[in-house]
Amino acid sequence: MRMVDLILKKRDNLPLTEEEINFIIKGYTEDKIPDYQIASLLMAICFRGMTDEECFYLTKAMVESGEVLDLSAINGKTVDKHSTGGVGDKTSLALGPLVASCGVKLAKMSGRGLGHTGGTLDKLESIPGFNIELTEEEFIKQVNDIGMAIIGQTKDMCPADKKLNALRDVTGTVESIPLIASSIMSKKIAAGAQTIVLDVKVGSGAFMKDLESARKLSKAMVEIGKQFGRNVSAVITNMDEPLGEAVGNSLEVIEAIETLKGNGPEDFTELVLNLGAHILYNAQEVASLEEGISKLQENMRNGKALMKFKEFVLRQGGNPDVTEDYSLLPQAKYVYEVNATEKGYIQHIDALAVGNYAMKLGAGRLTKESPIDLAVGLKIKQKIGAYVDENTILGEVYSNQPLTEEHFVEFRNLFKLTNEKIEKPKLILDLVR
Amino acid sequence: MRMVDLILKKRDNLPLTEEEINFIIKGYTEDKIPDYQIASLLMAICFRGMTDEECFYLTKAMVESGEVLDLSAINGKTVDKHSTGGVGDKTSLALGPLVASCGVKLAKMSGRGLGHTGGTLDKLESIPGFNIELTEEEFIKQVNDIGMAIIGQTKDMCPADKKLNALRDVTGTVESIPLIASSIMSKKIAAGAQTIVLDVKVGSGAFMKDLESARKLSKAMVEIGKQFGRNVSAVITNMDEPLGEAVGNSLEVIEAIETLKGNGPEDFTELVLNLGAHILYNAQEVASLEEGISKLQENMRNGKALMKFKEFVLRQGGNPDVTEDYSLLPQAKYVYEVNATEKGYIQHIDALAVGNYAMKLGAGRLTKESPIDLAVGLKIKQKIGAYVDENTILGEVYSNQPLTEEHFVEFRNLFKLTNEKIEKPKLILDLVR
Repeated sequence: MRMVDLILKKRDNLPLTEEEINFIIKGYTEDKIPDYQIASLLMAICFRGMTDEECFYLTKAMVESGEVLDLSAINGKTVDKHSTGGVGDKTSLALGPLVASCGVKLAKMSGRGLGHTGGTLDKLESIPGFNIELTEEEFIKQVNDIGMAIIGQTKDMCPADKKLNALRDVTGTVESIPLIASSIMSKKIAAGAQTIVLDVKVGSGAFMKDLESARKLSKAMVEIGKQFGRNVSAVITNMDEPLGEAVGNSLEVIEAIETLKGNGPEDFTELVLNLGAHILYNAQEVASLEEGISKLQENMRNGKALMKFKEFVLRQGGNPDVTEDYSLLPQAKYVYEVNATEKGYIQHIDALAVGNYAMKLGAGRLTKESPIDLAVGLKIKQKIGAYVDENTILGEVYSNQPLTEEHFVEFRNLFKLTNEKIEKPKLILDLVR
Repeated sequence: MRMVDLILKKRDNLPLTEEEINFIIKGYTEDKIPDYQIASLLMAICFRGMTDEECFYLTKAMVESGEVLDLSAINGKTVDKHSTGGVGDKTSLALGPLVASCGVKLAKMSGRGLGHTGGTLDKLESIPGFNIELTEEEFIKQVNDIGMAIIGQTKDMCPADKKLNALRDVTGTVESIPLIASSIMSKKIAAGAQTIVLDVKVGSGAFMKDLESARKLSKAMVEIGKQFGRNVSAVITNMDEPLGEAVGNSLEVIEAIETLKGNGPEDFTELVLNLGAHILYNAQEVASLEEGISKLQENMRNGKALMKFKEFVLRQGGNPDVTEDYSLLPQAKYVYEVNATEKGYIQHIDALAVGNYAMKLGAGRLTKESPIDLAVGLKIKQKIGAYVDENTILGEVYSNQPLTEEHFVEFRNLFKLTNEKIEKPKLILDLVR
C-alpha cells in the first residue's frame, strides 16, 4: 500500500477502506508517513468529506492508536458528557454532581482552557486543594464510591488524534465535520463511558457558526457512537451569547454552586437540566425527559445535588466549605461595575469577544504555556433581549489591575444595542439521537 | 503574513495576491515554510484551481526563484518548443534542424527520460561523441553560428518548481491544470526564447487523458506566455498510440534522421511539419501555416534540413556520419519480428504499455539513477486502423537479451483488435493561441 495512492483515492472521491485507514493512522502515529502526505490527505477530506463508515474506521483507528480506559469495574451506568466549547461554559461543574445525585456514574476526563474558551480542570483548581491528578485505580474507585470524578487524562489516549489535531491547526484543515466528529468521539470512546451526551454549541461564539453545520456534526458523532454500541445523543444549544453570567475560573465555580442551590442564571440552569435529563433518559434511569427534569429539580431543591458537589470536592482534596464561603476562592483585587451609556434592546453579545476579554484579564491562556489568574473574569448581567438605559449595569469586571477607560469602552462594545424589541433567544435548538 | 491564513484563503476559494504568492514561493524555496503547509495548499489548489492572474504570479515567482537565461546576444528570432510528453516522441531531434534550416534560432534545453517517457538528452547521447554539456557562452555562440543547440540545463533555473514538483509527486497533487501550466511555463520563460510552441499530447499514453483537459491546459499556458510578452501557441495532438514507429534511443535517432530525409513515418512527419509551421508563423518567418509547411517540406527535399542536423551533431562533438551509416549507433544483439496471431483491425495501441515495454527492455529508467541501454527498443509497424492477419508483422523488438515466449505475448497484447473497420485517428486535434 502506498500513501500517495490513498491520497489520490480520497481526492478522487472514492471511500477509503478500514484497512487503508488503519494503514494511514498506524503509519502516521509511528512516524512512518510524513506530515506532508497527511496534510494533503486532510485537505482532500475537507473537500470530499467522509462516509459514515470512514468516520467510524478513522475513530476506531485513533482509539486503537493509544490506551483505552476500562470502566467495567464500575457498578452502575457510566455516563460522560462533552461540550464542543463555548464561553462561560461551566456545565460539567454543575451537571456532574446533579446527575450523580440521581444515581448514574459520571467518569469524566477534562481538559484545560486555550484561547477564548475555558477549561474544566482550570476551574476546578480554583478550589483550594483540589487535585485533578488521580491514578486510574483511584479514579474508578471514586466513581464507584460517590458516583463521580473529574480528572485530567491519565493515559496516553488517542495519540494519533493529538498528532492530527496539531497538524490540522497549521494546515487549514480544522473545519471539516468528519474530522471534528472523529476527533471528539475517539476521545469519548477511549474514555469508556456507555452513555454519552454531547452539547453541540452553535453561534458566533462557537466553532459551528450555523445550525445546519451543528446538525451535521451532531449526526456524524451520534452515528459514530452507535457503531461503537454506545448510547449517544447530541443537544444543539445556542452560543450567540455567553452561557450564564460568569466568565472566569473562580466566578464560574461560584455560578455552578449557585445553580446546584437552585439560584443559577436561567439559561445555564435550563441547559444543565436538559443535558442532565438526556443523560438520565439515555442511561434508562427515567422513562422520559420530563421525568428526568423533575428528578434533577427535586435534587436541587432538597440539597442532594449540592451535597454531591461537596462530597466530590472533598474526595479530590478540595475544601468543601467553598460552597458556603466564596471568599475561600481566589479573589480579584478590583471589581468594577460597567453601566450602559445608551438606551436600547440588546441584540447581540459577542461571545468570542467576551472570551477574549476574559483572556486578556488573565483568565485564559494565549498559548499552552501561559499562566492563568484564577480570580479574574467578568459577569454579563444583561443578556440578549434585555432593555437597557444609562442606569443599567451591563456587567462586572473582576481584575487584578486597575481598569482604564479603554477597558470600559471595550466592555460596552461587547453589547450590540438596537431600538427594536428583541426576543430572548431559544437556548435548546435541536436534538440529534 | 501567516501561511495558514493563505491556505484558508485558497481553501475558501479566494484568489491569492501577487504578494501572497511571492511570500509562499520565496518562503518555500528558502525552507522557511514547511512541506506540510505547502502540501495542504497544493491540494486546495487541486480543488479550487487558480485564476489567470494567480497562474501568472505563480509562474513569475518560480522564474524569479532561480537564474534565467539571457538570449539577447542571439541575432535573430529565438524559438523553443515543449512537449507534454509521450511515447516515441523524438520531435525535437527532427524539428530543431528543420526550423533552424529555415532561419529561426532554436535554443533548447532538454531533459532525460523517466518511466515510460524517453528524454531528448538520452536520445542525443546515442550518437557517438555527442556532448550535451555546453557552457552558457558556448550554447549562445552555437545558436548564433548555426541556428540551433540542444543541451541539458546549464543554470540553477526554477528551483521552486523543482521543489514543488517533488512534493506534488508524493502528495497526490500532480493533476492540477494551473499547477502543470505554471510548472511548464516557468521553465520555458526562464529559458528565454521569444517564440514558444507547445505540443500538448492527449490520449491514453499522455498526461492529459481527454481533449477538454488538454484545451484547458493549453489555454492556461498560452495565457501565461502572453502575460510575459512571449509568442506562444499550443498544438493539441493525439497520443492514443505511440508517435511514429520507433521507441528507444538509437531507434528514435534513426527515425528522426529518416524524417529529415523525407522518409519518416506519416504521423510523425505530419506532427513535425505542423509544429514547425507554427514556429515559423509565430516567429513571423512565414505569412501562413501553409507557407510554413511548404518551406519545411522544401528543406526536407533539398537536403538543407539533414545538413543542419549534421552541422548540429558535429558542433556538439558527435559523429555526423551516423546520418549515412546507422551501424555507428549502438546496436542491439537480437532483433525479433513479432507477427499477429489473429485477424482484425487495430482499434487501440496502449502507448503507456509500449513505453513500459521499452523501459523493461532497458531503453528507459525506472528511477532517476537507473542506467539505460541506448541500443534497445521496439518498432510499431502497424498503427491504429490497419488490418492485420496471421502473416502481418506487428512490429520489431531490439533487445540485448534473448526474448522469451512471454515477451511475444506481451508485445501482441499491446495491440487491441476488433472485427469492425476502424478509422485512422486524426493527429492534430486542436490549436490554442
